[in-house]
Amino acid sequence: MSDKLYIFDTTLRDGEQVPGCQLNTVEKIEVAKALESLGVDVIEAGFPVSSPGDFNSVVEISKAVTWPTICALTRAVENDIRVAADALRYAKHPRIHTGIGTSDPHIRYKFNSTREEILERAVAAVAYAKRYVEDVQFYAEDAGRTDNEYLARVVEAVIKAGATVINIPDTTGYCLPSEFGAKIKYLFDHVDGIDKVIIATHCHNDLGMATANTVSGIINGARQAEVTINGIGERAGNTALEEVVMTFRSHKELGIDTDINATRITGISSMVSSLMNMPVQPNKAIVGRNAFAHSSGIHQDGVLKNRESYEIIDPKDVGIDENSIVLTARSGRAALKHRLHVLGCELSSGELDKAYEAFLQLADRKKEINDDDVLMIAGQHRKASSRIKLDFLQVTSGIKVHSVASVGLDIAGEKFEACASGNGPVDAALSAIKNIIHRKMLLKEFLIQAINKGSNDVGKVHMTVEHEGVSYYGFSANTDIVAASAEAFIDAINKFVR
Amino acid sequence: MSDKLYIFDTTLRDGEQVPGCQLNTVEKIEVAKALESLGVDVIEAGFPVSSPGDFNSVVEISKAVTWPTICALTRAVENDIRVAADALRYAKHPRIHTGIGTSDPHIRYKFNSTREEILERAVAAVAYAKRYVEDVQFYAEDAGRTDNEYLARVVEAVIKAGATVINIPDTTGYCLPSEFGAKIKYLFDHVDGIDKVIIATHCHNDLGMATANTVSGIINGARQAEVTINGIGERAGNTALEEVVMTFRSHKELGIDTDINATRITGISSMVSSLMNMPVQPNKAIVGRNAFAHSSGIHQDGVLKNRESYEIIDPKDVGIDENSIVLTARSGRAALKHRLHVLGCELSSGELDKAYEAFLQLADRKKEINDDDVLMIAGQHRKASSRIKLDFLQVTSGIKVHSVASVGLDIAGEKFEACASGNGPVDAALSAIKNIIHRKMLLKEFLIQAINKGSNDVGKVHMTVEHEGVSYYGFSANTDIVAASAEAFIDAINKFVR
Repeated sequence: MSDKLYIFDTTLRDGEQVPGCQLNTVEKIEVAKALESLGVDVIEAGFPVSSPGDFNSVVEISKAVTWPTICALTRAVENDIRVAADALRYAKHPRIHTGIGTSDPHIRYKFNSTREEILERAVAAVAYAKRYVEDVQFYAEDAGRTDNEYLARVVEAVIKAGATVINIPDTTGYCLPSEFGAKIKYLFDHVDGIDKVIIATHCHNDLGMATANTVSGIINGARQAEVTINGIGERAGNTALEEVVMTFRSHKELGIDTDINATRITGISSMVSSLMNMPVQPNKAIVGRNAFAHSSGIHQDGVLKNRESYEIIDPKDVGIDENSIVLTARSGRAALKHRLHVLGCELSSGELDKAYEAFLQLADRKKEINDDDVLMIAGQHRKASSRIKLDFLQVTSGIKVHSVASVGLDIAGEKFEACASGNGPVDAALSAIKNIIHRKMLLKEFLIQAINKGSNDVGKVHMTVEHEGVSYYGFSANTDIVAASAEAFIDAINKFVR
Repeated sequence: MSDKLYIFDTTLRDGEQVPGCQLNTVEKIEVAKALESLGVDVIEAGFPVSSPGDFNSVVEISKAVTWPTICALTRAVENDIRVAADALRYAKHPRIHTGIGTSDPHIRYKFNSTREEILERAVAAVAYAKRYVEDVQFYAEDAGRTDNEYLARVVEAVIKAGATVINIPDTTGYCLPSEFGAKIKYLFDHVDGIDKVIIATHCHNDLGMATANTVSGIINGARQAEVTINGIGERAGNTALEEVVMTFRSHKELGIDTDINATRITGISSMVSSLMNMPVQPNKAIVGRNAFAHSSGIHQDGVLKNRESYEIIDPKDVGIDENSIVLTARSGRAALKHRLHVLGCELSSGELDKAYEAFLQLADRKKEINDDDVLMIAGQHRKASSRIKLDFLQVTSGIKVHSVASVGLDIAGEKFEACASGNGPVDAALSAIKNIIHRKMLLKEFLIQAINKGSNDVGKVHMTVEHEGVSYYGFSANTDIVAASAEAFIDAINKFVR
């Protein structure tokens, strides 16, 4: 039986305060419900005193969600606490999260105060919050840089005042894992009554070590991890929920586990990325587009022989359909053979040698080798047989102009034309294509990647289109981002209209 | 005097084998020269036997670069080693990097072999490489999951065979920092002759702990870190150079440092991201767009009072001009006051209170508050005085269609119109604007972020325009990505044409 690790999600508070990530109340409720389905224990829903919108979100999330504890942030200020308690009035399991900076830089520069005064304010805030709710969490801001002896005194005092959870944040993301773990251990060794409360970690990622610090804190006794989906948060972000959860799933020898339903991780990651318009980089652990893609020749050979050689997590466990292997100049013979097999094409050993030579030459020129290329190399030309081809596309858009697109498709040799208007040029182009292809299609994912030194570099479009419950992936790259979007759409559609 | 940590950069080998990240030889030379200026000790330039393009890149990088050691990867196969030695013939400081999988899954499933046989192959490969070069690095692939006792035997044997550097990779990104550190310590405690060689770490980020594992390995005796720019690499990527370098710069008490010129980090990060078309997520440590941005009210107050309260790294140290503070619903009174001050607008305490109320209400509706909003709130209307306004824009683009744009600008009340064609709709729109604004401008950075559930969501455009040696930032969000690009361009231009 594993020890339970509580997951405290602060996507809607510490994550949401990132510039450009603000959500409206309806969107926040959508995320909160997804967090409930994911199985988080606590949802930090906002900082009610900070703005009327935040107050209202805490109220509405409290109404919308049943099982998780709803937590509201405050400073160690009576008015903050009263407002938070008011915002939490509909919560089935309310928690007030109050606290104050305890590091010397905070005490001196931010509060212009002394250690004794700060300790008194901490105790007073917890005692005041206790008038309103039973469950009071205290944070010692910048605990990562707080002197351990003083931190232990503060923690002991707030436990006596009634705190049920004590949060030890590494606010600046400064700690090393060994250091942060030792800090948690110090508290367990020196604080009276610490066994009656839950110690929480709240680590930031400024040096790239948020997950490691969190894991180190938990190994040393903490039992609540404060995290966000995709690790979003101010500056370099917070600890990523998915990384902490999957670390303990992969390291069963630690005997610690969460109640998270990991198969929902990929879904909620996309939802948060999309609602907050915060891209996840392809090489992000667990939830990046490439997290489970293998391309190196040496590696692919290993993956095909035995998944365990290179993968520590089965992509299915986090809700991904398959282990997509992309072919590049580094792909080995075994990877090419496997891909040909998947495409229904078996070659003799001699044919494979020739195909592999051709493959390497093409791969040196062309960065990614797609299925059409593979079949062409193997002497088969599927491209000619791909049912739908984009004949022409013309899109007009702008400012004080309605976007309109006209499109021509060649479907198995027959010509079709249609036009449509839309909310922007991409919407117009895709609508025009839909006016020709009369199938039920849902655009599930649509990612434009363009980072350019000039305005005429190539942009890439990744797209997922759902048809009859199955997802189809489309891709294109083009200097014209609108054309690339239309091409990616056709690419995906071609996969189910054969 | 700090102990020297060698930086071994594998952006051009392990990074470059990511799907979609392949560079041509000219681009590789550009990156290699930037790595030389950055001050890396070793550049892993490729895997020569894997393809003719890779071979050629190692040759050309060897010619182009003077100070760093140039390293070429091989398997423990004589032909690989011969080819690598040939590719390295122009290198001033050549190194061959050979090795083999030592974990049980690798030995059993990948090589269908035994521990004794693998050990013999390892020794033979190192001895063979020694015929060609003095500097031979050995890798024990999947060392992270290799039994320590067997690993120590392999390391001792390859040291006897002449290896100068031993690389201990956590190939699957499975290790915990404590575990990986203990593995390095075990080797130092059990391997004869280990003091004569350099032990290297090569950690992957599958659980988000690559940096922490690397740092833990170095604290326990390793003195070479194998890293990539932006942490790019297969799956969840490699260890990020910038995170390791800045961890040791921030933790001087560890007494370990590199020769990296950190002020070049931000520049090379953009270069690699742009050349490889691999976006860096905004919340990436050190090099993400938000890494040094603060928005929370509590935090901003602290930052303004004393940078040390919230920042452990001065953005200048990694080559960033200023600490950009973005205002949102969470921004405090002090942040608003500071921004107004920067804009040359001083308010009385009562005026500030009123402005702050208005600010909070606007911030609840509008996600980011820009300078115009701030001035409007303060009762001043700069918008009316912003010289250039976009009157209209019409762009036509597509497939089998030339992109053409017509634009109308209002410059201080006077109307101007121009048109231009271009390589895609964005290029056409920006060219048309340039035909009106006759200033020398260089588009230095251009980032489109669009992640949508449908095709009609809002996309964001970030842009940096250089004029007379100074960079100006422009931003816009619009459902029409082409319109957003034009608006962001005008936004940047307005900052220098006052």
